Amino acid sequence: MKLLEERITKDGKILPGDILKIDNFLNHQLDTKLMDEIGKEFYRLFKDREPNKILTIESSGIAIAQAASRYFGFIPIVFAKKTVATNMAKNTYEAKEHSYTRNIEYTVQVAKDYLTAEDRVLILDDFLANGEAMNSLISICNQAGAQIVGCGSVVCKTYQPGEKRIRDLGYDVEVLARVKSMSDDGKIEFE
Amino acid sequence: MKLLEERITKDGKILPGDILKIDNFLNHQLDTKLMDEIGKEFYRLFKDREPNKILTIESSGIAIAQAASRYFGFIPIVFAKKTVATNMAKNTYEAKEHSYTRNIEYTVQVAKDYLTAEDRVLILDDFLANGEAMNSLISICNQAGAQIVGCGSVVCKTYQPGEKRIRDLGYDVEVLARVKSMSDDGKIEFE
Repeated sequence: MKLLEERITKDGKILPGDILKIDNFLNHQLDTKLMDEIGKEFYRLFKDREPNKILTIESSGIAIAQAASRYFGFIPIVFAKKTVATNMAKNTYEAKEHSYTRNIEYTVQVAKDYLTAEDRVLILDDFLANGEAMNSLISICNQAGAQIVGCGSVVCKTYQPGEKRIRDLGYDVEVLARVKSMSDDGKIEFE
Repeated sequence: MKLLEERITKDGKILPGDILKIDNFLNHQLDTKLMDEIGKEFYRLFKDREPNKILTIESSGIAIAQAASRYFGFIPIVFAKKTVATNMAKNTYEAKEHSYTRNIEYTVQVAKDYLTAEDRVLILDDFLANGEAMNSLISICNQAGAQIVGCGSVVCKTYQPGEKRIRDLGYDVEVLARVKSMSDDGKIEFE
């Protein structure tokens, strides 16, 4: 997605630890017009799969999923939660996720009420690097017996194992910006 | 907002600790069509204030802010973060928030880059009860010297001190569903 690559080139910052920071339009400040374009692109890529639900993970995934949902005719979103909240349903599907960015182990949760064997799920997220978050969402869908019709990520660092890991599990992955290298002097190259 | 009150009556659950749980359309699963209606209503209420930015707080506020942003011509959103993340900008405005629901003290952060004295900010959030979250967002705007043009909440428990607290600080508050009582047998009454 050309528009997205241009924006990453313009605004992306490379931080120590191989972190691509795109806080000013995706992860802290949101460019909602760009989100809309991202949603439209995911619709183009996945419309033939006819999902009836989008599964994502808080927080940045929510804006992406919402933008896509409009194009799919306002299908519901479920966003997985990362912390144990006292008002969370006790009856949840759970998976572990190790965040390399934050160096934290999360428990990812989805209430059983909101994901069932009848669901055709499109999984969307912001970043695919090691594939930890997406893997946890896949695990949760499998626990629910829900059918995963596809996985989409806004950005993928293709030199990290996440994309292959998800494909090896048998799922289709679509990525809007494929980062093949990031150099210490701030240069970002795309595939 | 009639549609919202009807939905809360239909799907809201009252949990111990005076918690109104509306997980199935606002806080875990998202009814994106309803979000769109909520966004439209906030636009109707605040369009004359001409905000150039929406400030909210992760996670549930994001969907609300994004729905509203479309109606305001895709003005940017900044969502405040609740946890110290290693890839967060060091240069942040911060405020404390005590969550009564979770019984946790959060540090709420916004990167200084994304909120300035030039901004006319509309603050939006999901729940207004004790006013802790909204108060932290107001504090952050004040630190930035940004002008707050209004505060909106999807739901307010009007028998709790939050709404008055925000008004006493001198800010306009608009609420879409005003809950005046919740009983142990599950009955929710609106003003």
